Amino acid sequence: MSRIIRATVTPILISDPPLLNVLGVHQPYTPRTIVEIETDDGVTGIGETYGDTDYLDVARKLADALPGRDLTAMNGLYALASATLSGATDKVKEFDPAGLRGTRNNEKLIRSVVSAFEVASLDALGKTTGLPVHCLLGGKVRDRVDYSGYLFYRWAEHPDGEAPDDWGAALDPDGVVRQAQRFADDYGFTSFKLKGGVFEPEQEIAAIKALAKAFPGYPLRLDPNGGWSVEASVRVAEEVGDLLEYMEDPTAGVDGMAEVRKRTGAVLATNMCVTTFAEVPEAFAKDAVQVVLSDHHYWGGLQATRELAALCRTYGVGLSMHSNTHLGISLAAMTHVASVIPHLSYACDSHRPWQTEDVITEPHRFVGGALEVSDAPGLGVELDRDALAALHERWLTRPDMRDRDDVAAMRKVHPDWVQPSLPRW
Amino acid sequence: MSRIIRATVTPILISDPPLLNVLGVHQPYTPRTIVEIETDDGVTGIGETYGDTDYLDVARKLADALPGRDLTAMNGLYALASATLSGATDKVKEFDPAGLRGTRNNEKLIRSVVSAFEVASLDALGKTTGLPVHCLLGGKVRDRVDYSGYLFYRWAEHPDGEAPDDWGAALDPDGVVRQAQRFADDYGFTSFKLKGGVFEPEQEIAAIKALAKAFPGYPLRLDPNGGWSVEASVRVAEEVGDLLEYMEDPTAGVDGMAEVRKRTGAVLATNMCVTTFAEVPEAFAKDAVQVVLSDHHYWGGLQATRELAALCRTYGVGLSMHSNTHLGISLAAMTHVASVIPHLSYACDSHRPWQTEDVITEPHRFVGGALEVSDAPGLGVELDRDALAALHERWLTRPDMRDRDDVAAMRKVHPDWVQPSLPRW
Repeated sequence: MSRIIRATVTPILISDPPLLNVLGVHQPYTPRTIVEIETDDGVTGIGETYGDTDYLDVARKLADALPGRDLTAMNGLYALASATLSGATDKVKEFDPAGLRGTRNNEKLIRSVVSAFEVASLDALGKTTGLPVHCLLGGKVRDRVDYSGYLFYRWAEHPDGEAPDDWGAALDPDGVVRQAQRFADDYGFTSFKLKGGVFEPEQEIAAIKALAKAFPGYPLRLDPNGGWSVEASVRVAEEVGDLLEYMEDPTAGVDGMAEVRKRTGAVLATNMCVTTFAEVPEAFAKDAVQVVLSDHHYWGGLQATRELAALCRTYGVGLSMHSNTHLGISLAAMTHVASVIPHLSYACDSHRPWQTEDVITEPHRFVGGALEVSDAPGLGVELDRDALAALHERWLTRPDMRDRDDVAAMRKVHPDWVQPSLPRW
Repeated sequence: MSRIIRATVTPILISDPPLLNVLGVHQPYTPRTIVEIETDDGVTGIGETYGDTDYLDVARKLADALPGRDLTAMNGLYALASATLSGATDKVKEFDPAGLRGTRNNEKLIRSVVSAFEVASLDALGKTTGLPVHCLLGGKVRDRVDYSGYLFYRWAEHPDGEAPDDWGAALDPDGVVRQAQRFADDYGFTSFKLKGGVFEPEQEIAAIKALAKAFPGYPLRLDPNGGWSVEASVRVAEEVGDLLEYMEDPTAGVDGMAEVRKRTGAVLATNMCVTTFAEVPEAFAKDAVQVVLSDHHYWGGLQATRELAALCRTYGVGLSMHSNTHLGISLAAMTHVASVIPHLSYACDSHRPWQTEDVITEPHRFVGGALEVSDAPGLGVELDRDALAALHERWLTRPDMRDRDDVAAMRKVHPDWVQPSLPRW
């Protein structure tokens, strides 16, 4: 059995376009935490998670506690992370990152950090044994994992001109369709998700109708991040419910979701009102969600994602996958875990096309809207140390970007912008 | 990645004492199925499951379908077993083994068989990679697994004198206490379970009181296999509820269990009314069970047991482990999976002391009522081929014992015995 001799945590900032959502706009740079675990047999595994300061603090403490431990002791990582914070889990400091990630509590913070160390451990174990990560999870049940093209309303550029790209603005139905067309042309996506909650529902209804016309028969999704009232949600369901594969978090909170479900029969997905195990029983009992969008970081890793899948399967709830502003390490992990879950029957979300920077040597590229499941040892990706160093250097020089804050970013353009209270419409 | 070159299924009969339960008595011999999986790198992994004819038939078909497959492709075993039966899962023949095992359906039959192949695969993978099975499941969180001494009312011998032992009869409270004392002396058990439903509740209440007096402070359990009415269950709870860690299946069915719970507040465990994932939602919603006793065979293997554990944890339900008339292969598997689940907080059940025969070279022996978790590659046990051959020879020569039937065994002594309808009291 391999022992861990060193765990390294590197905070980075990656460029991010001016993508709009209900809270505001993405900053030009967003933080991620990169984890490396080195073993006594000379292998290094890598993992990745959210990068805001709270996550980073926990990750650094957990890394310090790892040397000497068995590489395979992944089931004990949560308890170790809890214990190393301040000697007792009930003393962990409060967790309050920027919004849109659902419930905020210590367990979720710790699980989000543990996920990166579990993935790094699996990567190292895979390299040690010659097995791809999916084989360490009981083997893939599919060779390709489908992803959905993730459409955003967006500005052409950040107000200060940082992190430029060539996508241009998308602020109306035509802009959304143009964006989708480029996604389809470049990556072959055959389903689309539109991040909504940016404009009043009628405009977003028009965008969905335009997409349905331009891409007939494609599964479509609309996600206003809880931005609508129950009434507005019902109105949207009546207008475009038939065009949508599912509505994602139309309204905030389990009770509102349950009411929308009851009144419309629409299939509702969430990555906001159910992001922890503790939220599952009430939401399932109330039929508030019909699809859970897993984020393996939130839930505590790849084994925890399987646990969530079993919960969903048992209660007749669908499973798909939430995206975050991830890089190639997490995309590899997402693809491995998606490949081993028979129950995962929807195309997964990914921000990937929006992230032009990466910390791996050969970033993934979607073909036919899908990724092949790697059979190479571990995750099947290699760390690009030059890229990692450059992105870490940016983190060192830009303390203003170390915590994601879409509200503050919006305020740079609209000085009177305050965090919208939900529902916005 | 290793490929499977051969899978072998060997039915055996193992000796079993005249242990009494609500349905009747154990036969002198009981069937088990032993599975071997050989890989192209010369490694053999072993697994074990129930041995009645229905299980054996499915196991043989699954074994035939395995050569050429990747050893790690465990997540696909269920679909493969379903497909190989008759081309479609809805054509699988009906499943009707002897009672006491809860719901009977094709999914459970297939899962019970798949469990042996998953365990054999993990054993082989562990030997190939040098890792103990617990490391392939994310690592143990405890070094020892506690087991409970499993007390039975019993006759001194089978009516035909077959499969003799030196335990003598236990048919009253004194006999039960004597049996417990020998268990404590020989194996150091510090908790006891009494299989009830054999005599009227008052006698079994007296046995529990006698045990509590002889072993003050020991956690005790009483399991009549659903033999009591709700009224009788309430009466038992009132009489000895305070002495019991939990009451196991006092009455048959979810609604009865829920009523007992509501009226007594007693902690109720089950390995009868919740033995499949499909039964979980109703039972949890009705608060019918507070502890699920997992049998990794029923649930589909070690990964499936983790899934069950996550369900229980999420819904605030305890987890412990059901025993079956297992040999050392399954006991090793039980110990590995019990070691990786933080949530498994009760001593596990095991029939082990009653099984004097085994198919491994060094059968386990409880010390301090516990087993050490093996750090040897795979399960940490080796197949005894001479023993396997001898027990298979018995299976060949005793077609009358190939399906467990406690009712028929009782009828040999009491010719007018018919399968009791529950509740018996």
